[in-house]
Amino acid sequence: MAYVTSTLIQMANQPKVTIKARGLSIGRAVDVSQITIKRMETAGYKIGDVRIGSEQVQSEDGRTRNVSTIEIEIMKS
Amino acid sequence: MAYVTSTLIQMANQPKVTIKARGLSIGRAVDVSQITIKRMETAGYKIGDVRIGSEQVQSEDGRTRNVSTIEIEIMKS
Repeated sequence: MAYVTSTLIQMANQPKVTIKARGLSIGRAVDVSQITIKRMETAGYKIGDVRIGSEQVQSEDGRTRNVSTIEIEIMKS
Repeated sequence: MAYVTSTLIQMANQPKVTIKARGLSIGRAVDVSQITIKRMETAGYKIGDVRIGSEQVQSEDGRTRNVSTIEIEIMKS
């Protein structure tokens, strides 16, 4: 819910907000976007572009591995 | 990896495959899409539309709750 509040505050000041997450947090990012637009449907908030990808991260043992990423745009229609 | 194999088999028979997941599996669906296109980049596979949403599901206690969903298209370019 902290992320939903943060999204709503940012949306009050700009026309578009991008929620970004990677790895295990990807599902939560989708939850945040859905709760935000459900609450603000009458204010015309909607999902914009949804982009997925992957990033290389360094593990603690020094090896690199790929982690999935997501970027979800919330915008006023 | 079973989902990656399944996606590759389906892609051999049709021009577009949609990977769907909901709830906690959303991150894994993104992983499957990324591994698939990384392996098949030279064959011209790429991510198409990515759609997110939510569905109402009935819990065991009879209450309904919302669960996030994702649909990821993999297509030949």
